[in-house]
Amino acid sequence: MTQINAAPVRATPLDPEDIIQGLRSAVEVTQEAAALGKALATQIKRVYFVSCGAPNRVSLGLEYWLDHYHSPYEVKRYFPAEFMTLQPELGPHTLVILASKSGTTAETVEAARFLQRFEAMTLAVTATTDKPLAELTQHVICIGETEQAHTGVFIALQAFVAGLMADQPHFPYQAVMESLPAVPAMLVESAQLSDQRGKVDAELYRDDRNFYHIAGGPVFTTAYVFGVCMLMEMQWLHSVAFEAAEWFHGPFEIFDAQTPALVLLGEDPSRPLAERVVTFCHKYSERVMVYDSRDFPMTGIAPEVRGIFAPYALQAALNRFAEHLAEQHNQSLDLRRYMWITEY
Amino acid sequence: MTQINAAPVRATPLDPEDIIQGLRSAVEVTQEAAALGKALATQIKRVYFVSCGAPNRVSLGLEYWLDHYHSPYEVKRYFPAEFMTLQPELGPHTLVILASKSGTTAETVEAARFLQRFEAMTLAVTATTDKPLAELTQHVICIGETEQAHTGVFIALQAFVAGLMADQPHFPYQAVMESLPAVPAMLVESAQLSDQRGKVDAELYRDDRNFYHIAGGPVFTTAYVFGVCMLMEMQWLHSVAFEAAEWFHGPFEIFDAQTPALVLLGEDPSRPLAERVVTFCHKYSERVMVYDSRDFPMTGIAPEVRGIFAPYALQAALNRFAEHLAEQHNQSLDLRRYMWITEY
Repeated sequence: MTQINAAPVRATPLDPEDIIQGLRSAVEVTQEAAALGKALATQIKRVYFVSCGAPNRVSLGLEYWLDHYHSPYEVKRYFPAEFMTLQPELGPHTLVILASKSGTTAETVEAARFLQRFEAMTLAVTATTDKPLAELTQHVICIGETEQAHTGVFIALQAFVAGLMADQPHFPYQAVMESLPAVPAMLVESAQLSDQRGKVDAELYRDDRNFYHIAGGPVFTTAYVFGVCMLMEMQWLHSVAFEAAEWFHGPFEIFDAQTPALVLLGEDPSRPLAERVVTFCHKYSERVMVYDSRDFPMTGIAPEVRGIFAPYALQAALNRFAEHLAEQHNQSLDLRRYMWITEY
Repeated sequence: MTQINAAPVRATPLDPEDIIQGLRSAVEVTQEAAALGKALATQIKRVYFVSCGAPNRVSLGLEYWLDHYHSPYEVKRYFPAEFMTLQPELGPHTLVILASKSGTTAETVEAARFLQRFEAMTLAVTATTDKPLAELTQHVICIGETEQAHTGVFIALQAFVAGLMADQPHFPYQAVMESLPAVPAMLVESAQLSDQRGKVDAELYRDDRNFYHIAGGPVFTTAYVFGVCMLMEMQWLHSVAFEAAEWFHGPFEIFDAQTPALVLLGEDPSRPLAERVVTFCHKYSERVMVYDSRDFPMTGIAPEVRGIFAPYALQAALNRFAEHLAEQHNQSLDLRRYMWITEY
């Protein structure tokens, strides 16, 4: 844990090839994932997303769109440990989707083992088939070993969900499927456009210990992943996310001219809710960051589904901010004090 | 907003009669609420809880138990503003439950108005029938004008949900209905047993600005209501809640020997998850508060449903802590800087 005498931490330079190559397997699996979705579509009544941390919030976005497009399924999202103790309906018409980047997340694997006692169908989204999670589930979608697992899980799961929804009249199946292969280059593009801004923001906010991140609808995925999975977990900041729709019903009372707020604007139906938060924050503070997906071309993404992909353009932008903050704090994004290195 | 020359803030003394009288209407309406639940039980396929702040988290507990007891319904929970933009399935077999203590919460009322364009059934839980929310909904359960609206909403909604579930084989209908009238006295009892502790804890933690509150399952209701709706909203503290099942997947990296953690233990299936958090926190810090419903007799609550009622015993205990913190901070729990007094 000590960093004494260690080399100073530098922002990892943006490596386009690393992103493109890291997502190659995920992109390659999209047709197969969609076909699996189509095959299972009429066999199930319930879809449960069961995962921790970032994959749980990827599922949050998928859940949003399933509800918005009136999927024929009951869609729920659980943390694995909660799922096992809660024990919801696990009959043969329930599909449980377990996502773990590594395929070794203890509680997600335990949930897969737990599920063997029930009739529910199981699907794993993970890196490779030789991991415990894949060995315990009926269906597996692999995204390969990659440093880009967060977006990889999204690409694979979004393709699967598109397959599930392919026959629903209002769901933009073709647009989603045509856009998925463009995601890796879109991430590179958004990151490149944001690197300089990330550096400036990191310098501006280097001494702050409390941050609020606010977003609506599927963009909450990004607010949580950046705020909690990155700044809280990796930089040990008091950095939390609130839903734009909830901000004015309590949380906003903490806001003042000193505490920085980061508001994320996407292009889904919740955008006006986040815009309202921007207006409010600007009224009382100059320490407000707004990241807006409309500032990114999102090349290759079909215009009618930009809202589905916007959270990931924003995530790519914020990853640069995180890298530069790590440099300012001289604290690597890989440093942990408990996770993986202690018993808990 | 200024407190200059104002009398020093004192912890409001516990007033048993205020609690008992304040919940009289809610208790009186339980049979009627359950009867309505029974009447609607076979007419619906979906239950959507739509509300902000504390009522939203009351719904979280109800949703937990509906899932646990395998209700025949698709149960979802939304914030009103998100609900209106997301527009989930609102056909005739959907029941939308709108809860607002005052009956005037702008977005909840707007959601009720929005719903008039759809076939979905609507039910309001609120103070009195002469408020906008009640006027816009098909069914209304009134809990009366009261300072105890948080528990009042719970009592009324729990009775309604018990009615919905009355014919489900494993749901403890009788035990729930017999326990509901005991809630007011149980709150008094739990508060009385906790007043001295609340005073001590308030003195111990008076200078802290960052708090984490951790709980599992239906007890998350209390962690959020105390952490965000009280300490954040009313005392302007950086005070947030995390699910016990998520704690070890990122958030726990913020934890250290300085930052206080409050862990809530209930008696539902998630208890072991919160116990694990207690063990972890005690390993690294002495600044850990554990509030455990097992420390309260919960007189009048049937033993087999203590888990359903435990979050409210804990809430009553924590209300005393909040009162004493307000005194230590010389900041009334009624003070706001934006809510109700500014345009937003």
